[in-house]
Amino acid sequence: MDTTFTSKVFDTETIRLAETEETIVRGGRDKFSLLPAAFEGISRIGVIGWGSQGPAQAQNLRDSLEGTDIRVKVGLRQGSNSMASAREAGFTEDNGTLGEMYEVIGESDMVILLISDAAQVEHYKKIFATMKDGATLGLSHGFLLGHLESVGEKFPANMNVIGVCPKGMGPSVRRLYVQGKEINGAGINCSFAVEQDIDGRATDQALGWAIGLGAPYVFKTTLGYEYRSDIFGERGILLGAVHGISEAMYRRLVMEKGMGEKEAFIATVENITGPLSKTISHEGIIAVYNRLDDEGRKTFERMYSAAYHPAFEILLEIYDEVSSGNEIRSVVMAGRRFDRYPMGRIDGTRMWRVGEEVRAERSGEPELNAETAGLYCAVMMAQIDLLLEKGHCYSEVCNESVIEAVDSLNPYMHFKGVAHMVDNCSTTARLGSRKWAPRFDYNIMQQAFVAFDGGREADEKLVAAFRDHKIHDVLATVATMRPSVDISLTE
Amino acid sequence: MDTTFTSKVFDTETIRLAETEETIVRGGRDKFSLLPAAFEGISRIGVIGWGSQGPAQAQNLRDSLEGTDIRVKVGLRQGSNSMASAREAGFTEDNGTLGEMYEVIGESDMVILLISDAAQVEHYKKIFATMKDGATLGLSHGFLLGHLESVGEKFPANMNVIGVCPKGMGPSVRRLYVQGKEINGAGINCSFAVEQDIDGRATDQALGWAIGLGAPYVFKTTLGYEYRSDIFGERGILLGAVHGISEAMYRRLVMEKGMGEKEAFIATVENITGPLSKTISHEGIIAVYNRLDDEGRKTFERMYSAAYHPAFEILLEIYDEVSSGNEIRSVVMAGRRFDRYPMGRIDGTRMWRVGEEVRAERSGEPELNAETAGLYCAVMMAQIDLLLEKGHCYSEVCNESVIEAVDSLNPYMHFKGVAHMVDNCSTTARLGSRKWAPRFDYNIMQQAFVAFDGGREADEKLVAAFRDHKIHDVLATVATMRPSVDISLTE
Repeated sequence: MDTTFTSKVFDTETIRLAETEETIVRGGRDKFSLLPAAFEGISRIGVIGWGSQGPAQAQNLRDSLEGTDIRVKVGLRQGSNSMASAREAGFTEDNGTLGEMYEVIGESDMVILLISDAAQVEHYKKIFATMKDGATLGLSHGFLLGHLESVGEKFPANMNVIGVCPKGMGPSVRRLYVQGKEINGAGINCSFAVEQDIDGRATDQALGWAIGLGAPYVFKTTLGYEYRSDIFGERGILLGAVHGISEAMYRRLVMEKGMGEKEAFIATVENITGPLSKTISHEGIIAVYNRLDDEGRKTFERMYSAAYHPAFEILLEIYDEVSSGNEIRSVVMAGRRFDRYPMGRIDGTRMWRVGEEVRAERSGEPELNAETAGLYCAVMMAQIDLLLEKGHCYSEVCNESVIEAVDSLNPYMHFKGVAHMVDNCSTTARLGSRKWAPRFDYNIMQQAFVAFDGGREADEKLVAAFRDHKIHDVLATVATMRPSVDISLTE
Repeated sequence: MDTTFTSKVFDTETIRLAETEETIVRGGRDKFSLLPAAFEGISRIGVIGWGSQGPAQAQNLRDSLEGTDIRVKVGLRQGSNSMASAREAGFTEDNGTLGEMYEVIGESDMVILLISDAAQVEHYKKIFATMKDGATLGLSHGFLLGHLESVGEKFPANMNVIGVCPKGMGPSVRRLYVQGKEINGAGINCSFAVEQDIDGRATDQALGWAIGLGAPYVFKTTLGYEYRSDIFGERGILLGAVHGISEAMYRRLVMEKGMGEKEAFIATVENITGPLSKTISHEGIIAVYNRLDDEGRKTFERMYSAAYHPAFEILLEIYDEVSSGNEIRSVVMAGRRFDRYPMGRIDGTRMWRVGEEVRAERSGEPELNAETAGLYCAVMMAQIDLLLEKGHCYSEVCNESVIEAVDSLNPYMHFKGVAHMVDNCSTTARLGSRKWAPRFDYNIMQQAFVAFDGGREADEKLVAAFRDHKIHDVLATVATMRPSVDISLTE
């Protein structure tokens, strides 16, 4: 796809990523002064919904626009349970920054629609009809486009339609923005998309929105590429795969290798969310391999070789399901079953209870486990290769497969466990994680572990392809575009 | 749905099943003399494909029609690997009973299409175009109708379209037919459907086909109901659920209860495929409960209560996926990925290796495990309740949820293990089993076991609903319609 664009307000740069070039805009607090120009003609921004992204985006935008005439107002369903939480964050009826959803939609020049995907599908017709003529519709996800495609409909012609999609879950979008007060440029990268531009202002509106959220850098995509990579990515290494391979690896160590439960938890989950994530975040994927000694590298290579294809097989299925519209239909149908069966907890099982104990007793960083490292990197590399094969640009690939994992989601998992992480994501992500984690688990158990424990040698070609992969240089380039800052999590 | 029908050839009966009545026809070898009348105008029957159902149906029909002028000819792709196997079964080019697929389709008065679902989707246009004007298309599964619905197409108007759907996998359709030489009426029940009837003969053609396969009794459905219950059922208790709950229960016993591996395998898989299946087959589901002592019943009730809703939740999702066409699209897409990733083995893991050892050392029948019994019966009852809720007739419900399990699939699993069973089913079933087994596993582990091991009491209402369920009388009635014969499996 064409990743070039021009802006009337922000300086663009061209960066070289492997054999490709991408146009990007760098963010940072020093750009906030440009926001009024980017939002020219917009005096009221309505942020609709208060789930994962809602609280983060409403607060970040309000803070970034402080001192301007642009008002950020939160819109919620009448009687919503989230009203209290929004008021705590400073959005109140009294100061005119909190109101009923359709009232806010009707009075806003730009409507940022952050209600759940299922709710979007349920309410989009009334929302479109309520919006002012010529207003801008903002989405943080291509899901609604995917749904419209699957039922053969289109966005109304009288509005700009833009997307700004933070490559991290809501809580991290807020947390890193707050940290960014000290370290300019700390934040979560965003992709942006312009689906409809009726007045020539759509690109700068999107860039302004992204910069206002605190994005260190902004790159271009389409909502079509976005939903394919995003719904896919969270089912893969970001949530589904990391959950599934953790269960499979932990079980193997306890049931088949006689390892103690805590020790096994440290060798698997703690390894992934701790040293593996940190190493990848600071130095890239290849650094994991480089940190190992000779023996460790041999183990890594054998596990990587055993796991890459079983992971790729499931990832390919996920991509097909998302692209075909099946996964979107599934999410919509699941939403209709919640009355009867709300989503259950996933962390009541013994393994995650052990995890609680391990976190409580934590001291220092565990040694890198070469098997877990080989497994985790195999799944991550399979996801990278698949997205490249499907034509996604490097920025999208890096963010959906690596950066969102190691800088946003895994730190939350490290801090409070897998269920906390999953439950702070969108309903679509939570559903996807529940659906695909067990699939990764079984395929890794049935294929990868049977091969590895049966003594299968490393696949030299596959290992060479990993070592020489272009992604390592690309990640290094992308890393230069934001300050190195670890997300700091507290109660 | 209306389950009544009339026949010009066979005697029909009306049976009372709970609050409903169904018209049925009883089979048996004594009815084979009526087959020429049922197939009036048909001199050539082409059986296309040699997968699971192909070998069974071609041989049964040929044997049942011996001495008549009706010739059964097998049609296969040029160069198909199955040619040798068909020849071994007596279908040869020399005696005019084996030929190229389209040649056989073009010369047959009735085409029984038993190639895989994916192949049907790929080739149906050419198949329809090749068939003789006025010929009859026979399907053993509603999958193709589901696909046509999902792409907005219809069957051509110039043909009868009928379905005869044996409620058991191919090998059992053949095996019990052979046993039926000794015990008249041994066989696998069939449902039948008439989708198009251009000459008034469709019903009797379908009944003749079913009787010729050796069905003890034949009941009416539609291809729409059939594919919903069939694709659903094999993802549920027939294959997917039984695999998933076995893995979950075995793991729980070994990892959390300190049970030895063989002992755990006997308490789970051996229990299900052995005493549980036998008891249900001979005396019905309630007999499992009645066989337990007081302590055992309490355990059963607690596990039943813990597992029913987590199982129902996944079953509801499966039904939605099948009804919406999603599952059919998934199967078609999966078929296109086989070149890159053929389906892997599922029985290489340690648990199934333990199973091999257990089978080799088998002596006598294990004691009924009350936890496993409660779990298995909960899933089975949830499936029954869901199908009744969706409007399926009792015969379909019993066959898809109980009889096919305990009389066809579980005995194969008992004989040679789960992978052998799965691998002898259709590709659609194998894909479904791989997809849904892990989902049952995780939901049972996360919800049911956490509740049970946390000491949650039995749900008295749920247990009473089980004890007083109408299905027990219905199963007793259905059991009277075939001789009690256990499938006898040998190499």
